[in-house]
Amino acid sequence: MLEKVLKTLDANQKRSVESLKEFLAIPSVSTKPEAKPQMQQCAKWLADWLKVGDFEAKVMPTAGHPVVLAKNKHVAGRPTVLLYGHYDVQPPEPLELWTTPPFEPTVRGGAIFARGAADDKGQVWAHIEALLAWQSHGGLPVNVTLLIEGEEEIGSIHLPDFIHKHAKELKADIALVSDTNQFAPGLPAITYGLRGLVYMEVTLTGPSHDLHSGLYGGSVPNAANVLCEILATLHTPDGKVNIAGFYDAVLPVSDEERKAWKQLPFDEAKYAAELKLSALTGEAGFTTLERCWARPTCDVNGITSGYQGPGAKTVIPAKASAKVSMRLVPDQDPLKIRDAFIKTVRERCPKGITAEVTCESHTPAVLVKMHSPAMELAAEAVEVGFGLRPALIRGGGSMPVVQVIKSALGIDTLLIGFGLPDDRVHSPNEKFDLDALHKGSRTAAALYDRLSRLEGIH
Amino acid sequence: MLEKVLKTLDANQKRSVESLKEFLAIPSVSTKPEAKPQMQQCAKWLADWLKVGDFEAKVMPTAGHPVVLAKNKHVAGRPTVLLYGHYDVQPPEPLELWTTPPFEPTVRGGAIFARGAADDKGQVWAHIEALLAWQSHGGLPVNVTLLIEGEEEIGSIHLPDFIHKHAKELKADIALVSDTNQFAPGLPAITYGLRGLVYMEVTLTGPSHDLHSGLYGGSVPNAANVLCEILATLHTPDGKVNIAGFYDAVLPVSDEERKAWKQLPFDEAKYAAELKLSALTGEAGFTTLERCWARPTCDVNGITSGYQGPGAKTVIPAKASAKVSMRLVPDQDPLKIRDAFIKTVRERCPKGITAEVTCESHTPAVLVKMHSPAMELAAEAVEVGFGLRPALIRGGGSMPVVQVIKSALGIDTLLIGFGLPDDRVHSPNEKFDLDALHKGSRTAAALYDRLSRLEGIH
Repeated sequence: MLEKVLKTLDANQKRSVESLKEFLAIPSVSTKPEAKPQMQQCAKWLADWLKVGDFEAKVMPTAGHPVVLAKNKHVAGRPTVLLYGHYDVQPPEPLELWTTPPFEPTVRGGAIFARGAADDKGQVWAHIEALLAWQSHGGLPVNVTLLIEGEEEIGSIHLPDFIHKHAKELKADIALVSDTNQFAPGLPAITYGLRGLVYMEVTLTGPSHDLHSGLYGGSVPNAANVLCEILATLHTPDGKVNIAGFYDAVLPVSDEERKAWKQLPFDEAKYAAELKLSALTGEAGFTTLERCWARPTCDVNGITSGYQGPGAKTVIPAKASAKVSMRLVPDQDPLKIRDAFIKTVRERCPKGITAEVTCESHTPAVLVKMHSPAMELAAEAVEVGFGLRPALIRGGGSMPVVQVIKSALGIDTLLIGFGLPDDRVHSPNEKFDLDALHKGSRTAAALYDRLSRLEGIH
Repeated sequence: MLEKVLKTLDANQKRSVESLKEFLAIPSVSTKPEAKPQMQQCAKWLADWLKVGDFEAKVMPTAGHPVVLAKNKHVAGRPTVLLYGHYDVQPPEPLELWTTPPFEPTVRGGAIFARGAADDKGQVWAHIEALLAWQSHGGLPVNVTLLIEGEEEIGSIHLPDFIHKHAKELKADIALVSDTNQFAPGLPAITYGLRGLVYMEVTLTGPSHDLHSGLYGGSVPNAANVLCEILATLHTPDGKVNIAGFYDAVLPVSDEERKAWKQLPFDEAKYAAELKLSALTGEAGFTTLERCWARPTCDVNGITSGYQGPGAKTVIPAKASAKVSMRLVPDQDPLKIRDAFIKTVRERCPKGITAEVTCESHTPAVLVKMHSPAMELAAEAVEVGFGLRPALIRGGGSMPVVQVIKSALGIDTLLIGFGLPDDRVHSPNEKFDLDALHKGSRTAAALYDRLSRLEGIH
């Protein structure tokens, strides 16, 4: 039956792109309060498509944006796969850097360009095509539950509650997520590790109001200068994060991994050239892949203070704020890191300035076994989809849901992504290759076939 | 005749406030390109009023905003006073912090609140009231030329050209500026020194576009982090500016000044409390007045980078920029300081990041003789206006025009200001006390009387 399903997918490619365009045209930017109606619209659009495939699909409210929950007709005794994805996207700004508008999906050069194209609408759509194809051929060989949320880009704020509350309904044997990348074009990958994230905001306040830099300059603390001084202390000259205890729980890269990663086709010079960087930087003593996959970071994501318009304004800013996030690796504890960050900023804040430090979100890193029966079945499915064995890699991003699924449902997650490293996720001109969309849907179809054999390994 | 003029000013107080309100209601924000029509309107409004006082008044174009140039009927043999002021104002943002809108002048608690109330429309208006009063009593006893520009808040970009080009028409014996402060309420002052200014913009560029902080974090330079690291190096822990050669030409505070400033009624604790600061900071070894008047500074005036909206965005900013300005003291050379700043930032910029450093404006500090015949005549005039002798002080702000007048016309400038330290110039809720407006116009009237006696000291 898989062969027939694959043929259907081959035949449906053009229509599939048109459907994905509809999905991408909905500006489901979860971080923008004014996008609430678009979030609802997007969830409903998804549920309606799943109903076409004879899924029982519901748009379920949360305290934030809704979750789409859908099931095929579950048959007792068959394994159950929980597919997780998200329909929300990052803000598209800065708009002027997009070649075509972020919510007017456009195909050029074999790829579809739009905000969310690869992260994660295109990948979710690859699965839905596979699910619909299976349903059109007498039904899936496995129980499937879809959990497509709308808050992944804002830290999945309400998802843990939702999963715990609906644990019975979400019961499954294995979880499946396609929100990661192939290693390189034509080299598919299964991701067995991800970094965690602690996202902080620091707001400094000096005088009661902005002051004239002539009348007051030299005699009062300047919130912008002090913010720079504090943030500058967050790294040592060799690129390490300068927070007490930060590395205490960090698992070293294993020899097996270090060796395997060295054999991956990765060219640091090309990587730098593609980003138009004259030099790569980072923690001394590690390769780029090690820095991205297995070492923790501390990045300023945004700063705002004082006058930012054209021309000059001679002002001493009363306030200065920064968004700062840390990527974590196993076995760093997000709450300990959060607290250490708060303590560090407070301690380093000089007299005359008050610091408010808040945590926007936090999630731990993920590391699953590189070798297991489920991993082997997944590798077979990727081989069906792409025509070659996947590489086993880690990823630098974060996926809070994996930890939540583990703790609430007691199951592991397979991370099989179809994106490419040059998809510019979170950046202007995000894209998803049509080849990845098609091979992804073939891989998904094969996954639902292979995972039906999981029962033996319960 | 001065007595009659003063009586007229006393009688005209209410109407004077109404006229000033009209002046303040024109949003003449020179830094905003879209405010061009309001700049023209404001210049014309001023010229029209001067014509009422039988001045020959012209709105003269420059490559930027126009200059108002006006003269009474000059009589050969009489001394000529060049009155300089400006009709442009700082941007009013942040608007939400204003109790009443910045361009809807409102009187409360004995003061008029509006952008530009003290800086400099209110002070210019004090002079115009005095000039009109003199003219209504048979004419001024002295030749007066008014030069009211529209670009003071953006570094007087086109004024030097204008003054050099019209040097003959502007020929005078002494210049007069009211754009400074009384030392304290009821304690008028003559300012004999001002700081200079060098205003820079630093723009750092890392990767070609904003990057996902998960996928790339740890392996690429972050423009926001690096900007903080560079700006943090601009001060040493004891509050000195950390740029090679920065202090080489700095004139020390003289013993006479240090002693005189200590006797001024200045309370550091009250100063901090008024700004809601838990501590004052600055260069070690100096008092607050010394830090504000006689020591150079380096302040960040604004920073912008990455995501600054609500919530979280996990981005590595490709760009980060800051506006940084340095207040200079005698005898620092603005061009040398500018070049030292550029060199410093470039040298401290690490690999992988490119730094663009530009200069928005520069002007030297000013220091005139504390004791001279003109200073004595001015002190007498202040005594007429305020009822007591002025303090001799320096100011922390900058006034490029003083240096331009010196070099183009060869004359010194008297700085006699009517503002108060708590007028919140450049900040929300800027105000000008009605008492200062009235005593200022009396002082101005007396100045035109006393300066008519300057001829003896040509």
